[in-house]
Amino acid sequence: MVRFVDVASMQRWVAQTGIERIVSGMAEMIEADFRRWGEFDKRPRVASHSPAGVIELMPASDGRAYAFKYVNGHPDNPRRGLQTVTGFGVLADVDSGYPLLLSEMTILTSLRTAATSALVARRLARPDSQVMALIGTGSQSEFQALAFRALLGIRTLRIWDTDPAAMDKFERNLGSLGFDVHRATGAAEAVEGADIITTCTADKAYATVLTDDMVVPGVHVNAMGGDCPGKTELESSILQRASVFVEYPEQTRIEGEIQQLPADFPVTELWRVFRGEAAGRTSPDEITVFDSVGFAIEDFSALRYLDSCVAGTEYAAEVNLIVDPTDPKDLFSLVSAGALTLALN
Amino acid sequence: MVRFVDVASMQRWVAQTGIERIVSGMAEMIEADFRRWGEFDKRPRVASHSPAGVIELMPASDGRAYAFKYVNGHPDNPRRGLQTVTGFGVLADVDSGYPLLLSEMTILTSLRTAATSALVARRLARPDSQVMALIGTGSQSEFQALAFRALLGIRTLRIWDTDPAAMDKFERNLGSLGFDVHRATGAAEAVEGADIITTCTADKAYATVLTDDMVVPGVHVNAMGGDCPGKTELESSILQRASVFVEYPEQTRIEGEIQQLPADFPVTELWRVFRGEAAGRTSPDEITVFDSVGFAIEDFSALRYLDSCVAGTEYAAEVNLIVDPTDPKDLFSLVSAGALTLALN
Repeated sequence: MVRFVDVASMQRWVAQTGIERIVSGMAEMIEADFRRWGEFDKRPRVASHSPAGVIELMPASDGRAYAFKYVNGHPDNPRRGLQTVTGFGVLADVDSGYPLLLSEMTILTSLRTAATSALVARRLARPDSQVMALIGTGSQSEFQALAFRALLGIRTLRIWDTDPAAMDKFERNLGSLGFDVHRATGAAEAVEGADIITTCTADKAYATVLTDDMVVPGVHVNAMGGDCPGKTELESSILQRASVFVEYPEQTRIEGEIQQLPADFPVTELWRVFRGEAAGRTSPDEITVFDSVGFAIEDFSALRYLDSCVAGTEYAAEVNLIVDPTDPKDLFSLVSAGALTLALN
Repeated sequence: MVRFVDVASMQRWVAQTGIERIVSGMAEMIEADFRRWGEFDKRPRVASHSPAGVIELMPASDGRAYAFKYVNGHPDNPRRGLQTVTGFGVLADVDSGYPLLLSEMTILTSLRTAATSALVARRLARPDSQVMALIGTGSQSEFQALAFRALLGIRTLRIWDTDPAAMDKFERNLGSLGFDVHRATGAAEAVEGADIITTCTADKAYATVLTDDMVVPGVHVNAMGGDCPGKTELESSILQRASVFVEYPEQTRIEGEIQQLPADFPVTELWRVFRGEAAGRTSPDEITVFDSVGFAIEDFSALRYLDSCVAGTEYAAEVNLIVDPTDPKDLFSLVSAGALTLALN
């Protein structure tokens, strides 16, 4: 039997545990896993592109546990009532190859992405940061806001989205949660006075959500939305002026903002920062950019964190996904009735 | 909601439909999909190796449907009561990126592997073939026997396995099904007089299940077990004397019997044979080898075949794997209760 967390169970687990608590616990596990970077079997995600979007498989293993996520990215989906990004994932035992946990990962991905963003910002944003601009108030935005409050104490938000309904939704969702939300009339106004700029738009295109003049010294840019070949958000000159931090260069150079730049453009790997082997922010005037694309180890950590919380609880059901014949070499015994069926019909 | 075929449902579907009928229908779909080879997004499977075995992801897409299989290969698993190979898979809609079907694929893989073996043998074995030797009578063996009867009319089997209990099991399972089964005392005896030799052993090692002297002119070798780097079954000189047919050279040169040979060793791609663009067997004395490793398009075909049979029937349950908020940009609404939890606790 494989443990199974469906959407309803995930909703109950999150509601009863608390988003900020989950994001904090998950961030700890992500950092711990990034610190043991060398133990992981890593590769860029395996993408299947189509005109409508992309379907990706993201595997990672530390030699004891194996995890993968299935995730899609379809920017036009909301127009027909569907999610831009959905996913599910599996945690498995390397020693036997058997899956242990199957989980929905649309909600879980939002939590792990927010946890990663805030975890990285804690190293790269100025310690006195108080204001975050959020460009794009779609599915990810509220999770980002809560994670930045949980990990950095950010309570002042300046928001902008080309879709006014998305801003209405954001204000409605976070209105009663103790944030000070300023709704801007454009991206340039949103970033005024912001210490941190989070870009999370969804177009699969070379968009320029953030232009060079909008980014002043001292700012940390959490660039979430440029995460696919042909999909970027930042004017490239911002990157040239900034210190750029990435999860896994082999993947980010294909998918991230730095796809706009030569293959030898210098970047710093986050695991080195977490291990103290590379510097994070080095001065109050430095511009830092987290060129975030989402890496398989974050999903590995999120699934392990989830499993540690839900195994043996009512949040985890069981599904009969893997056969279990009495004699392991007698798989046929499970369907032997089917050998007679043709003769009988 | 995603359609879900668990192990119990798969067992019922196979029992009530019949193995030979399923294998025949599946073989038709596999051949049809191989014939439109150029339409597929293909790649070698994505393998994560460990000392105990391998975990693989096998994606394929034709631009309308996308499928992937998770499959492990752990030769020591039976010693602790587990399957050497287990799997599950997903069929998805390319246009939305949403999964449509989740299915167990341990049983389904045995069916599709047997269907592929027999489909290929129908092109490569001598038309007058009557006798098949089966070297290795583990989990796959009965499925192979039934598929070769369904597609080629083979009723005489000569079997050998280093594990006598595995041969007992095979005889018990097929005893009443109208086969003439001869139990040999070694591989050399098993292949005597055989028109087709199927090797399906599981050791993850360079084994020599079949030596050069055992393979006489006119034989077709269905080499199933050599399917992993470092895992082969045939003495390489057999390959030198034979016409070798493969699914997807990019993957077979890594995993198949031909990993023993130079990268330019000539092989014929099966899809060309199915399309009539390359010859299969050309003379009664030719030795043909299907260097089978298992390719993602076969799983794609198997999942589509399964879905066409079970969608809308009681064999397919529904699981709540993908979120469905009223406003697609309001994922947060599904867990908004979790934003208050920390404050309340």
